[in-house]
Amino acid sequence: MAAEMAQMEDIEVMTSLVRDDVISAPVEEQERRRAVAGLFFAYKVAGARADEGAELNEVKAAADKAIVNTRSMGVALSSCTIPAAGRPTFTIGEDEMELGMGIHGEPGLSRGKIKPADEVVETMLDKILPDLPFKKGDEVAVLVNGLGATPPEELYIIYRKAHEILAGKGLKVYRPYIGEYATSMEMAGASISLMKLDEELKRLLDAPAYSPFLLQWPR
Amino acid sequence: MAAEMAQMEDIEVMTSLVRDDVISAPVEEQERRRAVAGLFFAYKVAGARADEGAELNEVKAAADKAIVNTRSMGVALSSCTIPAAGRPTFTIGEDEMELGMGIHGEPGLSRGKIKPADEVVETMLDKILPDLPFKKGDEVAVLVNGLGATPPEELYIIYRKAHEILAGKGLKVYRPYIGEYATSMEMAGASISLMKLDEELKRLLDAPAYSPFLLQWPR
Repeated sequence: MAAEMAQMEDIEVMTSLVRDDVISAPVEEQERRRAVAGLFFAYKVAGARADEGAELNEVKAAADKAIVNTRSMGVALSSCTIPAAGRPTFTIGEDEMELGMGIHGEPGLSRGKIKPADEVVETMLDKILPDLPFKKGDEVAVLVNGLGATPPEELYIIYRKAHEILAGKGLKVYRPYIGEYATSMEMAGASISLMKLDEELKRLLDAPAYSPFLLQWPR
Repeated sequence: MAAEMAQMEDIEVMTSLVRDDVISAPVEEQERRRAVAGLFFAYKVAGARADEGAELNEVKAAADKAIVNTRSMGVALSSCTIPAAGRPTFTIGEDEMELGMGIHGEPGLSRGKIKPADEVVETMLDKILPDLPFKKGDEVAVLVNGLGATPPEELYIIYRKAHEILAGKGLKVYRPYIGEYATSMEMAGASISLMKLDEELKRLLDAPAYSPFLLQWPR
């Protein structure tokens, strides 16, 4: 919608669609996949490239590189309430969780009883890692994203296990982000996103950022 | 406990207790009051003063000045779950709220049906403003603090009304903080804290901060 409105004002527009959710469609049908929290990496990289004074097509190229190198999966324990609707988008039992759910309540992989965090992380990385695939020796950025009502303490429990699994497979975590970056109002749950890095993506990720969306001091 | 452990190591320790919750005891019995999110201002001011290279007693004096100038009140819509307990600390109806509740579920002023945000803000400021009292012409820092599961959008709804009331009474908001600064795990709810400012407190509040607790870029 923003792109259409800008075009009506004769502003040059290029569009990149994030498709990081590995559960939303098989890898052969990536163009049907939806975006979840991995859009964070595309925003950060595109913003940093623009801040370097790059041309629009160069900014788009950087965003597209971030997108093709990013994979995510999430888990939800409660619904969000969209203010205009005034009631939860869906219901889920107190003792239930849904693996792979979209941030607006789109159906995921499976709904079932709550499981320990370590098991959930194993399931998520079992889906994420072979999808790109991420391989031994790769450097990755990791985002453990809270959906709105999951405390930082629990996000760090998720990151601990994710880091252990990645280290065990010979992947190197270049930079972790742990917090609320793409939320679904007060939804309880979290997602894991991995972005495979090269020198350009590392440079753009490291650039300082000063915005309501992200505050990142220079190193 | 940290102070006791440090003293056992022969580290010089001074203690300041935050007592910002106006509901926890009458103004004549301030020494019985508990701390809620207003502790944020004491941390920020003490940290900035220490960063200036001040002596311990000077840091304590700055923290104590922040404390005596700060007043808060909160509202809770759901309980937190302490991990070691594994279940909610208390229960509250889906359509209920408790005004003045402490961040660990300590009883507040009243429990009742959910009310519109504007009304809740009016009630909170009616308790906070006469307590110091805050007067026409005062410069204040305002903290609208989410307790863990309240979306930023709703915190801004609270701030909008608070700013309107403060402006109407001739108070000047020098610096607003709107976000999650002192949370109670995944509790739904929020609090308002006001700190009356002088030149020293403004300088210490404005100092850049780079910590997990607070990222604040230099102006």
